[in-house]
Amino acid sequence: METTPNHTQTVAGWAARDSSGKVTPFVFKRRENGVDDVTIKVLYCGMCHTDLHYIKNDWGITMYPVVPGHEITGVITKVGANVTNFKVGDRVGVGCLAASCLNCEHCDQSEENYCEQAQFTYNGIFWDGSVTYGGYSKMLVADKRFVVHVPNNLPLDAVAPLLCAGITVFSPMKRHNMLEAGKKLGVVGLGGLGHVAVKFGKAFGLQVTVISTSPSKEREARELLDADNFIVSTDPEAMQAGSRSLDYVIDTVAAKHSLGPILELLKVNGKLVLVGAPDKPLDLPSFPLIFGKRVVSGSIIGGIKETQEMMDLCGEHNITCNIELIKPDYINDALDRLANNDVRYRFVIDIAAQSNL
Amino acid sequence: METTPNHTQTVAGWAARDSSGKVTPFVFKRRENGVDDVTIKVLYCGMCHTDLHYIKNDWGITMYPVVPGHEITGVITKVGANVTNFKVGDRVGVGCLAASCLNCEHCDQSEENYCEQAQFTYNGIFWDGSVTYGGYSKMLVADKRFVVHVPNNLPLDAVAPLLCAGITVFSPMKRHNMLEAGKKLGVVGLGGLGHVAVKFGKAFGLQVTVISTSPSKEREARELLDADNFIVSTDPEAMQAGSRSLDYVIDTVAAKHSLGPILELLKVNGKLVLVGAPDKPLDLPSFPLIFGKRVVSGSIIGGIKETQEMMDLCGEHNITCNIELIKPDYINDALDRLANNDVRYRFVIDIAAQSNL
Repeated sequence: METTPNHTQTVAGWAARDSSGKVTPFVFKRRENGVDDVTIKVLYCGMCHTDLHYIKNDWGITMYPVVPGHEITGVITKVGANVTNFKVGDRVGVGCLAASCLNCEHCDQSEENYCEQAQFTYNGIFWDGSVTYGGYSKMLVADKRFVVHVPNNLPLDAVAPLLCAGITVFSPMKRHNMLEAGKKLGVVGLGGLGHVAVKFGKAFGLQVTVISTSPSKEREARELLDADNFIVSTDPEAMQAGSRSLDYVIDTVAAKHSLGPILELLKVNGKLVLVGAPDKPLDLPSFPLIFGKRVVSGSIIGGIKETQEMMDLCGEHNITCNIELIKPDYINDALDRLANNDVRYRFVIDIAAQSNL
Repeated sequence: METTPNHTQTVAGWAARDSSGKVTPFVFKRRENGVDDVTIKVLYCGMCHTDLHYIKNDWGITMYPVVPGHEITGVITKVGANVTNFKVGDRVGVGCLAASCLNCEHCDQSEENYCEQAQFTYNGIFWDGSVTYGGYSKMLVADKRFVVHVPNNLPLDAVAPLLCAGITVFSPMKRHNMLEAGKKLGVVGLGGLGHVAVKFGKAFGLQVTVISTSPSKEREARELLDADNFIVSTDPEAMQAGSRSLDYVIDTVAAKHSLGPILELLKVNGKLVLVGAPDKPLDLPSFPLIFGKRVVSGSIIGGIKETQEMMDLCGEHNITCNIELIKPDYINDALDRLANNDVRYRFVIDIAAQSNL
């Protein structure tokens, strides 16, 4: 880590110091608010499964201490001299991105997420050489380019997971023209990402089928999320009955699985987007792919411009996430439950709440 | 098999009677030339790897005796009363398709190859209930819908493999807009399909890179097929050097392999089309897919309208296949060599040649 003499602002947060899977209180420094920066009082931060991977160093790339959190909402308390689109008091959000090269073809199109030099909100390296610290903390300094407005009609807590889970499903849905009313959308896996995909599908008038290994999720899928259909993926007859019925599938499952049975649910020319990131290769049988000229694509989060677009659409359609709001002293318990997928559908930390941790 | 009382025309051909892998002479009956039919004197028939699968019953669906062959060219000797677009003496081709429902959305768009009731040129069930027999035979009766014209400037022998190998690569290249001059195309595997993909790429002004496990193929790729680049896929340094360099990839490899290293060769948003049909699932690692929002698609042969379009373009650009022309008495030897991929790049049977088999 290079020297960062202008890191003068003291912040209280929570960090993992090693791979034990726990966070503890951590006081650290953030940079002064620069001319292009905004300072944000962090109010809420969603807990993404990725946080757990970094905390436990599952990918071998964690730089401890790591302050997780990339589903951040709050209120602006300071703006730099060059900042014209934000003012003190604005309700804003910050997602996964802290920096990018700003010069490549991807940055030019506000696809900063595909910039080869993109740096994440935590465990990244900012332009000044410092390691980035995320939203499990009371204050954040962010470059204005990587901040979005939150519509006034949306609550800051239930909005937070849109910054990662939301844009992760919205970006490919938009890119692959999956928001057409009347079309049939399948959502594989009903977790943080899946439940938002169902909401987008319903908001845009699609007929939504949830595909899950858990029969127990049918009721909540239909009653809570208004899904039209539910298929238990381990039931061969139900899968067979759904053959060639869907236009699109969003596959949110983060564990290794075969894409074959899911591809069979797609019509000819149907599209599957993978947004989960299993660490082992998926099985891709060639026959359902070639005999249906089907398409499998991948996608990772989204660019800033489309994140703002998603936020605005969520404001119009009143889309937020279903969350379990927790206090900071519950973070470690929540991490344990997250590891067991025991959450409907996202933990969000009430950063400003009184806490013993 | 239902009774087929109008099957009155006697034909000499070659059939496999069991899974031993050999063909022997076979005399059988074809239907009378109906009002929508044309009768074709078969002159040439390409030998596709699929023929070998059916001959050996690799997929467990062979109905013996099977007369293989779906890369058929010849001259029309008879036309039915409803046939207006063909006349006696026309040089024509027949590919993999003998029939389809003619009523579904796919047939409506001349995507007969994706019709759920599509029937193949051999080992299929024709509308009259009879089993279809393919082009390893001296005469064929075909419904006019499934016949294409062969441009006069192209030789009927070197054209034959276009009816399967050619359209298999052309169809997805066209569908995914891969024929744009100046773009960078990778072709994985340099066999019957791969060598035609290279030719299409070069004809349309793309920069073509051949990716192969065999360093020995570099010279022929560059000198014979005019490929611009060659990457040995087992050389990690060469693969690394090619990272994010290609716009499109056509993957023609029919053996199980991982798509990961190939996906890494694609730019962000790059497209890979799988046209081989490995019988075991391919490995699809999620990271190169999602971090590059890359697209993997499949494709199988093509529709009749686009087959004619391809033929016409091949006429304009003078594209044919590189073949090894054999007499019928060499078919069994050729099958053995085909099993070992020992052919540059396609065997074509000179059906009318004198033969002891």
